[in-house]
Amino acid sequence: MMQIAILGFGVVGSGTAEVLTENKKRIEAHCGEEVSVKYILDLREFPEHPLGDRVVHDMEIILRDPEVVLVAEMMGGSHPAYEFTRRALEAGKHVVTSNKEVVASFGVELLELARANRVSYLFEASVGGGIPIIRPLQTDLASNEILSISGILNGTTNFILTKMKQEGAEFADALKVAQANGYAEANPAADVEGLDAARKIVILAALAFGVLIDPKTIPVEGITGITGEHTALADKLGGAVKLIGHTERIGDKVYAAVSPYFVPASNPISHVDDVFNGILVDANMLGRALFYGAGAGKLPTASAVVADIIDILSHRAEERKLPAWKSAKKEELADPADYACRRVYLFEGCPKCAAKAKVAFGTEECSFVCDGKFAVVTPVMRAKDAEAALAASGLDAVLMLPVLD
Amino acid sequence: MMQIAILGFGVVGSGTAEVLTENKKRIEAHCGEEVSVKYILDLREFPEHPLGDRVVHDMEIILRDPEVVLVAEMMGGSHPAYEFTRRALEAGKHVVTSNKEVVASFGVELLELARANRVSYLFEASVGGGIPIIRPLQTDLASNEILSISGILNGTTNFILTKMKQEGAEFADALKVAQANGYAEANPAADVEGLDAARKIVILAALAFGVLIDPKTIPVEGITGITGEHTALADKLGGAVKLIGHTERIGDKVYAAVSPYFVPASNPISHVDDVFNGILVDANMLGRALFYGAGAGKLPTASAVVADIIDILSHRAEERKLPAWKSAKKEELADPADYACRRVYLFEGCPKCAAKAKVAFGTEECSFVCDGKFAVVTPVMRAKDAEAALAASGLDAVLMLPVLD
Repeated sequence: MMQIAILGFGVVGSGTAEVLTENKKRIEAHCGEEVSVKYILDLREFPEHPLGDRVVHDMEIILRDPEVVLVAEMMGGSHPAYEFTRRALEAGKHVVTSNKEVVASFGVELLELARANRVSYLFEASVGGGIPIIRPLQTDLASNEILSISGILNGTTNFILTKMKQEGAEFADALKVAQANGYAEANPAADVEGLDAARKIVILAALAFGVLIDPKTIPVEGITGITGEHTALADKLGGAVKLIGHTERIGDKVYAAVSPYFVPASNPISHVDDVFNGILVDANMLGRALFYGAGAGKLPTASAVVADIIDILSHRAEERKLPAWKSAKKEELADPADYACRRVYLFEGCPKCAAKAKVAFGTEECSFVCDGKFAVVTPVMRAKDAEAALAASGLDAVLMLPVLD
Repeated sequence: MMQIAILGFGVVGSGTAEVLTENKKRIEAHCGEEVSVKYILDLREFPEHPLGDRVVHDMEIILRDPEVVLVAEMMGGSHPAYEFTRRALEAGKHVVTSNKEVVASFGVELLELARANRVSYLFEASVGGGIPIIRPLQTDLASNEILSISGILNGTTNFILTKMKQEGAEFADALKVAQANGYAEANPAADVEGLDAARKIVILAALAFGVLIDPKTIPVEGITGITGEHTALADKLGGAVKLIGHTERIGDKVYAAVSPYFVPASNPISHVDDVFNGILVDANMLGRALFYGAGAGKLPTASAVVADIIDILSHRAEERKLPAWKSAKKEELADPADYACRRVYLFEGCPKCAAKAKVAFGTEECSFVCDGKFAVVTPVMRAKDAEAALAASGLDAVLMLPVLD
């Protein structure tokens, strides 16, 4: 029997206990012996829960117990999750986590600490909820150089954007529906302003390019500025507005950002709707692959946590190679002005204005959409060149969206 | 330096050499040392190829060389690929393969043989080309019970069906376009009659349920009978016709089959177009996840072969747990008459006939589509119950498609 501890008995923590119980036999078959939850660390008591007698309030009990070989941290927030993770690794215990905040902020140090203590630190559940993405990037795509990753990484905002598209709703109304359905929190800032997606895209960027970027330093735009006009335009052009976390190399530097994009229907990510997440990886040998599924939720996220537990406990004989990340230095980060893509601009004006815009952006892709407004789709060009072209046109754009081709 | 041998220097074999060369440094970093191709077994000579001097025509040379730790079999066809695989495993060499025919026919025996000789037999590239699916099923979904797998497993037929949908083409014309584009062979039988997909779905069924079914014994229907009427109907109902390999448990038995389905737009698999493959896994904790990407092609398939090579060579210290499959006994196979799903029937007739059909199938979902024809969508019902309802209606169906919800 192998003993583990669960830190934090909220949604994902209790889900993890449920997966371990529900699929007990299958998990035992993989690990070679039974996996048992010896402790649950939480401030609360859970007298009604079958595992209620495992609840402790003092982390020291877990750290001091040599029987506990693995700690599953699902507390959320940076502190004390970070400190507890450190101490568990220092005590020679493996750690798995769903906590993207801790991985995004302290991943470099915690991976280093795990390596030094010859234990593992795995975090499949920190990005994409239950969707397999972290392990596939490290194993199935090991033979590939990653060119870019673009993902719908936040289910709340995807639900809101889907509602806006399907029902022609405005942001505020769609947010209310999301809140009524339990898909958005009372304070939805971390979701709708893009911070949650930012934490996830820096983790994916680190897996792809080896440098972990502080999520507070990347360009992040949420969906609070998205209006019915954006979604109507996307519909007219044959696609959808999606909040995308994107990372790629620009020269020898790394670019990572979160912003709303226009995603044409030809890109499979445009069909990822409702609370689902989808992550599109472009690799130099494989080409494009999409990983789609439940990006949040109790059991899906717990399923990924337990996959990490099984991975560690079924390979205890061998020391795992953990990714060696470095903290990104300022000079390793690409200038957002150099980010190149196609862009859609919406302008107000007559055919004469449209002619001006076409010349300025060097494009023939221009169509009148409605109410005397016209949309121009630029060729692939750097942000700074697009801005220069806009200035040269002498026009004021009603709105602009980068295109995810 | 670790030495490997490539068996078969066709599309995937030469692609594998290309991936090993192109991403050499990355692969070396994963494996801890250089991976070098010592031999290429082929009947032909490749004097112009940089590795042309590695070509041998006698398998004995490879078997007798103790330096060769791993053999990558990409010959295609059952023989002599099966015999060579046997002998390589018996000689204590790891084997990786892209050969679905060998895995589907001899997987039970070859996995057993690998276990007995304490080596690995991996086959990520045998299903879904470059798409990570086999390893995710075994690792990321290890904590889950698999409920069902439904996949677009053949790129050729998906290209043809996409053309039929987008251009209103008939099968014969779309096939010609596929052949002209190099997506279909001169003799397209194995693809269009569903045999290729059948081999892949039995491999996926074995991974999900532990029993390998002889692909020749499962119900297989290809797309040669699909007409413009099918695709027009699917379009009217808001979805697409797709060739689906499907497997699930029915009671304690296993069902696996290949047939055309109507896939509503709400199912993400309906948006998998052109030569792409998509595999939808429904698992008891994760829910639904879709794996999408290039299901064939030189470099994508080779990328999966090399992922297996890296997986083995970077974990040589530890003995791998290979899946323990059994050959499916007849009594373990579900009766196709018990397979339950919704179904779309197209009938010719008047509103009176439609009323009859609605009563017989116990459904209200009925719509007139065109030319005096009407479509009925049944509730979820077993195949035999649907047939009984059809007989009771006294109507002749113009066509029928199961629905993949």
